[in-house]
Amino acid sequence: MSLAIICSGGDAPGMNPAIKKFVDYVYKCGKTPYFIYDGLEGLIDAKIKKAVHSDVAGILHNGGAIIGSSRSKRFYEKSYREKASENLRKFNINGVVVLGGDGSYKAFEILNAEFGINFVGIPTTIDNDIFGTDYCLGVDTALNVIRGAVDNIRDTASTFKRAFVVETMGRECGYLAAVTALSSGAEICVIPEMNFNKEVAAHFLKKDLQEGRSYILAIVAEGTKATYEIKKWLEDDILMETRVTVLGHIQRGGNPTVFDRMMAFEFTVRAVDLLIKNKNMCKAIGFSEGKFTALDIFKINKGKYEIPSNILRDLHFLD
Amino acid sequence: MSLAIICSGGDAPGMNPAIKKFVDYVYKCGKTPYFIYDGLEGLIDAKIKKAVHSDVAGILHNGGAIIGSSRSKRFYEKSYREKASENLRKFNINGVVVLGGDGSYKAFEILNAEFGINFVGIPTTIDNDIFGTDYCLGVDTALNVIRGAVDNIRDTASTFKRAFVVETMGRECGYLAAVTALSSGAEICVIPEMNFNKEVAAHFLKKDLQEGRSYILAIVAEGTKATYEIKKWLEDDILMETRVTVLGHIQRGGNPTVFDRMMAFEFTVRAVDLLIKNKNMCKAIGFSEGKFTALDIFKINKGKYEIPSNILRDLHFLD
Amino acid sequence: MSLAIICSGGDAPGMNPAIKKFVDYVYKCGKTPYFIYDGLEGLIDAKIKKAVHSDVAGILHNGGAIIGSSRSKRFYEKSYREKASENLRKFNINGVVVLGGDGSYKAFEILNAEFGINFVGIPTTIDNDIFGTDYCLGVDTALNVIRGAVDNIRDTASTFKRAFVVETMGRECGYLAAVTALSSGAEICVIPEMNFNKEVAAHFLKKDLQEGRSYILAIVAEGTKATYEIKKWLEDDILMETRVTVLGHIQRGGNPTVFDRMMAFEFTVRAVDLLIKNKNMCKAIGFSEGKFTALDIFKINKGKYEIPSNILRDLHFLD
Amino acid sequence: MSLAIICSGGDAPGMNPAIKKFVDYVYKCGKTPYFIYDGLEGLIDAKIKKAVHSDVAGILHNGGAIIGSSRSKRFYEKSYREKASENLRKFNINGVVVLGGDGSYKAFEILNAEFGINFVGIPTTIDNDIFGTDYCLGVDTALNVIRGAVDNIRDTASTFKRAFVVETMGRECGYLAAVTALSSGAEICVIPEMNFNKEVAAHFLKKDLQEGRSYILAIVAEGTKATYEIKKWLEDDILMETRVTVLGHIQRGGNPTVFDRMMAFEFTVRAVDLLIKNKNMCKAIGFSEGKFTALDIFKINKGKYEIPSNILRDLHFLD
Repeated sequence: MSLAIICSGGDAPGMNPAIKKFVDYVYKCGKTPYFIYDGLEGLIDAKIKKAVHSDVAGILHNGGAIIGSSRSKRFYEKSYREKASENLRKFNINGVVVLGGDGSYKAFEILNAEFGINFVGIPTTIDNDIFGTDYCLGVDTALNVIRGAVDNIRDTASTFKRAFVVETMGRECGYLAAVTALSSGAEICVIPEMNFNKEVAAHFLKKDLQEGRSYILAIVAEGTKATYEIKKWLEDDILMETRVTVLGHIQRGGNPTVFDRMMAFEFTVRAVDLLIKNKNMCKAIGFSEGKFTALDIFKINKGKYEIPSNILRDLHFLD
Repeated sequence: MSLAIICSGGDAPGMNPAIKKFVDYVYKCGKTPYFIYDGLEGLIDAKIKKAVHSDVAGILHNGGAIIGSSRSKRFYEKSYREKASENLRKFNINGVVVLGGDGSYKAFEILNAEFGINFVGIPTTIDNDIFGTDYCLGVDTALNVIRGAVDNIRDTASTFKRAFVVETMGRECGYLAAVTALSSGAEICVIPEMNFNKEVAAHFLKKDLQEGRSYILAIVAEGTKATYEIKKWLEDDILMETRVTVLGHIQRGGNPTVFDRMMAFEFTVRAVDLLIKNKNMCKAIGFSEGKFTALDIFKINKGKYEIPSNILRDLHFLD
Repeated sequence: MSLAIICSGGDAPGMNPAIKKFVDYVYKCGKTPYFIYDGLEGLIDAKIKKAVHSDVAGILHNGGAIIGSSRSKRFYEKSYREKASENLRKFNINGVVVLGGDGSYKAFEILNAEFGINFVGIPTTIDNDIFGTDYCLGVDTALNVIRGAVDNIRDTASTFKRAFVVETMGRECGYLAAVTALSSGAEICVIPEMNFNKEVAAHFLKKDLQEGRSYILAIVAEGTKATYEIKKWLEDDILMETRVTVLGHIQRGGNPTVFDRMMAFEFTVRAVDLLIKNKNMCKAIGFSEGKFTALDIFKINKGKYEIPSNILRDLHFLD
Repeated sequence: MSLAIICSGGDAPGMNPAIKKFVDYVYKCGKTPYFIYDGLEGLIDAKIKKAVHSDVAGILHNGGAIIGSSRSKRFYEKSYREKASENLRKFNINGVVVLGGDGSYKAFEILNAEFGINFVGIPTTIDNDIFGTDYCLGVDTALNVIRGAVDNIRDTASTFKRAFVVETMGRECGYLAAVTALSSGAEICVIPEMNFNKEVAAHFLKKDLQEGRSYILAIVAEGTKATYEIKKWLEDDILMETRVTVLGHIQRGGNPTVFDRMMAFEFTVRAVDLLIKNKNMCKAIGFSEGKFTALDIFKINKGKYEIPSNILRDLHFLD
């Protein structure tokens, strides 16, 4: 029996630990591991190779993914999907572990429906925006990278009595921004999930400033597109000189934290086990309330991830 | 109503975020927060002060504890415990949040029995060795500090084709060593919870070395006292030049990770809530299978923490 | 005799080590140290305080400046400058150590000319753009912060076979960008000091890409305003999907490196020595070819810093 | 013309940047670069390979040395030295760049005398103990790794009102300990180069402790063998609970700092230039007072490196 691993869509720290565990564990189970390089593009182009232990030596502490990833437009055409499926059959691959987000699961759900391709997804995205799982691989590392950046910005903010607007990644989901705001003690957090009430915020900020507050830190999720609006508001209404920092792609890289490494191992073992024990798999591993589960792909793609209510509740303290 | 916070025993990253949350949240609940400085020693000497918001500004990213900690011999004498209790009454303190391990809970359990002192413990120790909770504050930061050190050691190990024995903290509990071994891909892990079989290990190591392995990393928990025995074995039986690194107190310090900050907040809110809502409290907050619980102190002190079975199982892969 | 220290203009890591050394060394010399808070604004408003040892305990590892900094518009009016000078006399301050760049020296040069205020500047700016000195305080820390960010970006760039444009600070001076490009092995560097030849660069890049290069890293100095032009060129001419990261203010913060701490000490001791030994001082400390010097302010303000020729030479290799 | 590079003796961060520059620059000069793997042991065993650009892609941020290093006992026998020389001739290698310390230079000095082997050394050791150069590759990275460890230890020291003795590497040279003590604001520094006067130190420490000092940090160089003596003294005479941390091999690893990367490039270019332009070379590159020089090996091996007098002077402040 042969199993393959593929990365698809945006990369996230923790992919390499998952890839290493995949190779080690598949061999341990007496099966043969394969790499699919460069995501769906590579799958279409048959960039497939049998993996050996030495391929994954010393990669645990590297961000990114040694097998590459991609976004594929060709995959929208059935002829290319057919080619992808044929490539899997040529190499006698019985199942695929998919590191990626819900977009990637949708792609494989179609391959499953059209060509019976067997797969299990591992939720992998720093956005933490996949319905059905509390945790996505890469989030803990991203949060700690952001922490380092915010710590640096606070140094300069406190020296200058300025406001800083820090934009984190997160298109439809404000998880990174929300947890960053709480864990760094920011005064303002603007995310898609919550209405930001400027009047209330202004009331509290002005009171704080009168009582001696010397700087303001605002964390804004990319998806709100409110970064520069908040800057203007801080300057015009709160009367603070304000700087913007868009953290960008530094959030995607970095040495995976211990938590992401351990989660990568746990996710991978469960994904491989499911593929070994079952004939037709179209699922993803989830992690909910401290437990791992197997999620139906069609359910994932119908729901929308919601930030835990206790985090949203605490954010209201900021106002 | 007034509540106090105290740190007792070994320090751990995450204490400062807990202290900050304590002050902010107690005020939010309409109560008055107090600091007890320098642990039980300070409690005996009435080093108690009303806390204000500015005391805890900008401390989220600092390791250690701004209110200090201590181990106290005087506390073993009842006269000093009486003094400690009187000090709490003098300041009209209705309950105490205790950041520390099971030794500290025992101390407060006695204060509770003898003088009716109300308290809730927050499990705080990098050893992760408290019965009844899966997680203790500070562990995630300690693991990531160790990760950085092991990454450095690997650089030099791989250059020299040497074996390295890295000793982590953990007197009776091998949790830090076990998770470090797995997450850093170490070849050997020696912990109190598991019998280390040298013959089996030697068999696999020698095979690996013949197949091209160039260095060996062994993680040993302090509590096994086996560090130098493993070194000797690696030199005499495995025939590798071997170096020892005892990580020591660098494991206790460092900027708390996002996970430790968030856990500090959650633990603290629950501890404060319990003290506000209940008259006689002699409990600690636990975190089990993704949920927070309230643990009876007498139960904690009767059981022994066990490393999760999946971690022990994976460690057997190393042999 | 009393001496004061002030931070003026943009902040830089190394200010706190300089402030600590100032207090310790001035006391060691038998004189009295003063703090001027919040830059020229604070000087005008008489935010001046005698410094004691405990003010500077435990600040060596903090970025920013505990005494604050500012940019001042009021200072352009003579009445405010007079006020500033009067404040210094009121506190019997005989000389001022000025942490800042050439703009700050100009301000004090005027105070010197108009009111005989005695001062010595310490070149402090991450831009490294002060004429007459090879090194400005904060540069080494900024370069290493950028290094960490670029390492992260490389993780994601290599996974995706993308180009990345990273914009560093530096308005008129490309030093940060130039050293970052060399030390991180970037393929492209665009700075104000050098003409960037797109045709030549395209020739080499295309050759590299044909030979297997999988990603491109371009470092662009803020002052060139070419960041998005380079992005467009990489997409349109080199045909690489391209992402931009503007590092922004994270470059100003961070725990000062050992080099910046030691340089802070050396600069400060020399500045204090000059003020103690001389009546009328209008100078700045410089560091050239491994030696410290005393620079005339009027000369500094007439010249323009040039990036060392060996760095510019090596950048031509990139094309 | 062919040139080779070898690492010999203890490893140091900065070796990989030097190795990368060596390959790139030798090709740029129109010559052929070779790797000698695993130090003198590998030279004896003819582990020699032509280097290509892809060998050195993405290694700038890795500690250690991708070509390995070793200490060799066989090299003391002439028959093995003859073999080493023959191997160089077999590959038509005209000169060798040697990354290592004075012991390695001695080895090549003998090869030069006996067999006319041409070489240029690059001072590479975190001990910074080579006569004739102010700087050895790896020192800046090691100092910053130590800084991180000491920052962590300070967290726990300040919480507990304890003394900490931190032992740094450095057998005969206290440079790392001295610079660490100054840059981290330690109270005590014990190095081979300076007599440590316990009475004087005790006098000042006791005064400090009376005035409110809450913890003591002592930095001790390995070569003094005084680590546990200082611990005992702090406990018995200063009456402080004291912990020891031996930093060990974490000091040798780590992502090279920007300074070490840039110095690696500068050293390497000069070493290669000397080998290209000269027939018989038996020298090492030095860096003195801000300038690079070419040092005669026999002179290096006759002198002893001395810590700069200003550093020793400042250490006396600690007493």
